[in-house]
Amino acid sequence: MKKELFIEVIPLGGLGEIGKNMTAVKYQDEIILIDCGMAFPEDELMGIDLVLPDYTYLLDNRDKVLAVLLTHGHEDHIGGLPYFLKQINVPVYGSRLALGLVGHKLKEHHMEKDAQLKTVKPRDIVSIGSFKVEFIRVSHSIPDAMALAIHTPQGVVVHTGDFKIDHTPVDGDVIDLHRFASLGEQGVLLLMSDSTNVEREGYTFSERLVGKSFEEYFAAAEERIIIASFASNIHRLQQVIYAAEKYGRQLAVAGRSMVTVLTVASELGYLKIPEGMLIDLDEVDKLPNNKVVILTTGSQGEPMSALTRMAFGDHRQLAVMPGDTVIISATPIPGNEKSVSRNINQLFKMGAKVIYEGNSDIHVSGHPSQEELKLIINLLRPQYFLPVHGEYRMLKKHAELAQQLGIPAENTFVGEIGQVFAFNRRHGRMVGRVPAGRVLVDGLGVGDVGNIVLRDRRDMAQDGILIVVVTMDKNTHQVLAGPDIVSRGFVYVREAEALMGEARQKVIAALQKCSDQGKSGWSYIKQEIKSALGKFLFDHTHRRPIILPIIMEVDKS
Amino acid sequence: MKKELFIEVIPLGGLGEIGKNMTAVKYQDEIILIDCGMAFPEDELMGIDLVLPDYTYLLDNRDKVLAVLLTHGHEDHIGGLPYFLKQINVPVYGSRLALGLVGHKLKEHHMEKDAQLKTVKPRDIVSIGSFKVEFIRVSHSIPDAMALAIHTPQGVVVHTGDFKIDHTPVDGDVIDLHRFASLGEQGVLLLMSDSTNVEREGYTFSERLVGKSFEEYFAAAEERIIIASFASNIHRLQQVIYAAEKYGRQLAVAGRSMVTVLTVASELGYLKIPEGMLIDLDEVDKLPNNKVVILTTGSQGEPMSALTRMAFGDHRQLAVMPGDTVIISATPIPGNEKSVSRNINQLFKMGAKVIYEGNSDIHVSGHPSQEELKLIINLLRPQYFLPVHGEYRMLKKHAELAQQLGIPAENTFVGEIGQVFAFNRRHGRMVGRVPAGRVLVDGLGVGDVGNIVLRDRRDMAQDGILIVVVTMDKNTHQVLAGPDIVSRGFVYVREAEALMGEARQKVIAALQKCSDQGKSGWSYIKQEIKSALGKFLFDHTHRRPIILPIIMEVDKS
Repeated sequence: MKKELFIEVIPLGGLGEIGKNMTAVKYQDEIILIDCGMAFPEDELMGIDLVLPDYTYLLDNRDKVLAVLLTHGHEDHIGGLPYFLKQINVPVYGSRLALGLVGHKLKEHHMEKDAQLKTVKPRDIVSIGSFKVEFIRVSHSIPDAMALAIHTPQGVVVHTGDFKIDHTPVDGDVIDLHRFASLGEQGVLLLMSDSTNVEREGYTFSERLVGKSFEEYFAAAEERIIIASFASNIHRLQQVIYAAEKYGRQLAVAGRSMVTVLTVASELGYLKIPEGMLIDLDEVDKLPNNKVVILTTGSQGEPMSALTRMAFGDHRQLAVMPGDTVIISATPIPGNEKSVSRNINQLFKMGAKVIYEGNSDIHVSGHPSQEELKLIINLLRPQYFLPVHGEYRMLKKHAELAQQLGIPAENTFVGEIGQVFAFNRRHGRMVGRVPAGRVLVDGLGVGDVGNIVLRDRRDMAQDGILIVVVTMDKNTHQVLAGPDIVSRGFVYVREAEALMGEARQKVIAALQKCSDQGKSGWSYIKQEIKSALGKFLFDHTHRRPIILPIIMEVDKS
Repeated sequence: MKKELFIEVIPLGGLGEIGKNMTAVKYQDEIILIDCGMAFPEDELMGIDLVLPDYTYLLDNRDKVLAVLLTHGHEDHIGGLPYFLKQINVPVYGSRLALGLVGHKLKEHHMEKDAQLKTVKPRDIVSIGSFKVEFIRVSHSIPDAMALAIHTPQGVVVHTGDFKIDHTPVDGDVIDLHRFASLGEQGVLLLMSDSTNVEREGYTFSERLVGKSFEEYFAAAEERIIIASFASNIHRLQQVIYAAEKYGRQLAVAGRSMVTVLTVASELGYLKIPEGMLIDLDEVDKLPNNKVVILTTGSQGEPMSALTRMAFGDHRQLAVMPGDTVIISATPIPGNEKSVSRNINQLFKMGAKVIYEGNSDIHVSGHPSQEELKLIINLLRPQYFLPVHGEYRMLKKHAELAQQLGIPAENTFVGEIGQVFAFNRRHGRMVGRVPAGRVLVDGLGVGDVGNIVLRDRRDMAQDGILIVVVTMDKNTHQVLAGPDIVSRGFVYVREAEALMGEARQKVIAALQKCSDQGKSGWSYIKQEIKSALGKFLFDHTHRRPIILPIIMEVDKS
C-alpha cells in the first residue's frame, strides 16, 4: 500500500500572539519558510531587546530548509533574518523594498556579503524544490506587500501575508483580486489569512483618506507642522510629501528609523521627493514657520524617539513651540497607550495643536476588516482554513467567520505555534508538535537570558537587593571582617541607618548561632543569614529584597 | 487701606493626572480639604505599592487644617486618609457609604479609634470655621456621591466631585439639579468640575443600560455566568443581583475587595441581596451550572485577581470551564489594556464565551460627557472656572468648553498641582506656588523610596547586577581572598563561565595596576574595577549591569 502524502504546515510564530511571524511549509524532505520576524518584548521581559521565534525545529532539520519567502518588509516579518541566516544561510525571496530593508539590516550585522537575496515581483513564479511559489500583489501599510500561492503536489496553499483591500491605493497598485479569483476557480487546498482586524466590522478605509485629512490640516496650519508616523508606512510619508508640495513647505526628517526608511525607499524609487524639498534638521530654524513640515518617529510615545525628545526639550536640534501643529498619524499599539498619552499632554503643554486618534481621520489600519476577510475567503473557496497573525480570540473569531461562509467547522483550525498540521485533498488535521516558543535577545546575547535571570531582574525591580559580605578564617571560622551590608534599590540608606544597623546585628547573631551550634558549612551559614535577615526586613518594611550572602575565606595560618 | 480678602484654592492632586485627588480651600487662617486620595503607581515606579499626594504644605500649616470633606468613596478620593490622618487628625465628613469604606480601611491600619468620622447626607449643611459646606447629590459609579457647595465670605465655591447625569439611576436617587440651578441663580464664584470624559461628545449612558444587557446575557446563558467588575460599582452589583433573581441563579463572590465592598454595602443597606441568594464559593460546584452567577474582581486583568487566577487555573476553589459566560463589565484603565487582553484570550482558550468591551453594552462610564458638562456650567454660571480631575489635555479642553459657553478666557484656569489660586468677586488669578508632587509608599515605608532607589531598581531590571568582592590586608593591601564575582539578573552563569572567568582576570589586572601605581585608596580601587569591568562587559555583551565592588579589609598583623 502506498503511503499517503501530505503537505505539512508548521506555524512557529504569529499564532496566539502578534509578532515574530514565521511559518514552515514542508513536503517530504523539503521545507520552505514564510517570513522570519521578530517581536518587541512585553514589559515583563525586563531588559530584553527583542524576541525571536524558537526555531529549534528548523535547526534540527537544517538540511531540509530550502528558502525563506518574505511577504513584506515589516520588522515582525523580516526582523529575525540576521539571527536566522547566521545559522541557516538559505536564499531569501522578497520584493525589492522588503529586500532593500533586509539588506540595510544585514549590513548593520556585517552579514551583507554572504546573504542570497533574490528579488521577485508580483505574478513571478519561482521553483523551489517541489514547490512553485507565486507572488501576488496585496495592499498593506508598506508598499510591495505580497501574498503567496504555493503550488504543491498536494494542492495550492495560499498565505495572504498582511493585507487590506484598498481600491484607491496611493501608488495605484491595486490588490490582484484577479489572481485570487482564478486560484479559487482552480481550487485551493489551504488558506492562511491575516486575523489582526477580524473584530472590526465593515471595511478598512483607504489610505487616501489620510491624505485628504493631511491636506485639510496643512491648509489650516499657520506655523510649523510636525507629523509622527511609522517610518515603514511609505505611502503615508508620500502623502505628507504631496501635501508639503501643494502647500509650499520644505521637509525635514527626524529619528533614525525615519531617516533609514526614507533613504532606502527613495533610493529604490518608492518615494518621490521633489528636488530641493528635503532640508537638514539644522536648517528648520532658518525658514519661516509656515514653510516647514517635519516628519518624525515617536508615534508610539517611545521615550528615546525624536518626537518625545522634541516634546520634552531633550532634542539636540528641535523643540516643539507654541503654534506648532503636531499630527500623530498612528494608533497606539496595545501597551503603548500610556506613553502616547503622556506625549500628547506634554505637546499640549508646549502650546502645540495636537491632532491625534479619536479627534480626527489621520490614521487608517493596514489590515482587513470583516468584509474584506469574507471577500478573500469567498474568492479563494479553500478546502481548509487556518487563520494566522492574531491572538487566540482573533483566530477563533476568524475561524467562525469562515464557518459562516460555508467552510465546515472540522476544516477550520485555531492553531498554536509548534503544532504540525497535515493536509491533502482527503484529510486535514493536526498531527503533532515540534518545539516552539520564544528566544530572548539581550544585547549581543541570543537565548542566554532565561527565566531565572528574568525572575532575578523582576525581584530586584520590586524590592531591590541586599548584599551581605563577611570574611572568615578558613580554618577557625572566626570572622575576620564584616559583616558588611550593601544595598541597591532597597531603601534610602541615609534614612534607614538605624534599620541597617539592626540588620547587621541580626547577621552577627546568625553567625554566632551557627558557631555555637558547630555548624560550619558555608551553605548552611548563608541560609541562616538569609532567613534571619529576610524575616527581620519583612517585619520592619514589608519588603522582600533579594538577600545575597557572600562569604570570603582567608587562610590566616 | 483695608487688605483685599480672597478665597484661595490649592490643588494638591488630580490636576494634570488621574488619581490622588486632593484640593485645599483656604480662607484667612482656615483650610478645609476636598478629598484625600491615592493613585496606583505607573509601571516605571518599580515595586511601589501606592502613591500619595505630597501634602507638605498642609504639614507646614497643620494648625490651620479644620476638616476633610469627601465627595465619594473611591480609592482615588479616600485612599490617602490612613496616611494623612496619622499626621493630621481632623474630622472627616462624608456620606454613609464613603465613611463605611473609610472605616474599613482605617481598621486595617488599626486607626479606627481615633478617627472622627462625621456622616452627612445630601442637602446637609455643616459649618466649619467660616465655611458653610453644603452636600449635593450627584450620580456616579458608586452610590452616595456628592458635590460640594462651599459658602464662603467671598462667595460660593462649587466642586462637582466625580459625577455624571443619570436620569434613571439604579437606586432612583437622581442628581439634585435643582440645587445646582438655585445656586446658579444666587451666584457662584468658582466652579471646579470633573474633566475625565471631556473628550467625549454627547451624553454618558445611564447605568440602567448595563442592567438591560445583563438580562439579555442571563437569558441566553445555559451554563455558569461569571461577571468581573469594579467592586465599588455597587449599582452594577445590584443589577447583577436583580438579574440573578429574575433568572433563578444563586450568587457567589470571589476576590477580596469584592467581598469587602459587598459586606460593607449590604450592612449599610446599599445593596439588597435576597435572603438565601448568597452562597459560598465552595458551594458553586454543588449546584447545576445554570443556577450560578459568580461576581469577581479582575476586570483590569490584575495578575493576582480572582478572575485571572480562575482563567489560568490558579484559583483554589474555581476554574473557568467550557460553556461559562464570562462578562467583563468594565473598560481597561489606560495601561491595563495588555493584561485585560491576555485574560480575554485565556478565557476563550478555556472555552468560555467572553463578553467584553467593543462587542457589547456591558459597561458605561461614571463620568460626564460634553453635554453634561455644558449643562452643569450653564446651570451654575460661575464667575471663574477651574477644571479638575483630568490630564493636562482634558483640563485644557474643558476650559475651552467653558469659554464656548461664555466664560471669559481670563476667568478659566488650566491649573497644575501646587499652584495657589486666589478668587474674590473682583479678581481671580494664580498667585503663587506651594510644594506638590508625589510621595511613594512601598510596603511600610512612606517616602523612603525616591529617585536613586528607583533608578537602581530600573537599572537592575534592565541588565542586572555584578558584585565584585575582594578581601585585602589592611596594611599591605595584599589580596587575601577573591576577587569573587557574583551576579544576579545578568546572564545564565552556566552559559557564561568563560565570560565570568575573563571578567575575574580583568579585576585582577585592575587590582595589579592600582598596586603598581601605588594607589591604595579604596574608592580609587573601586572606580578602577568598575571601569575596567564595565568596558569589558559592554564590549562582550552590549549590556550595562550595575557593577558593585566591595572591598573588605582584614588586619593580619
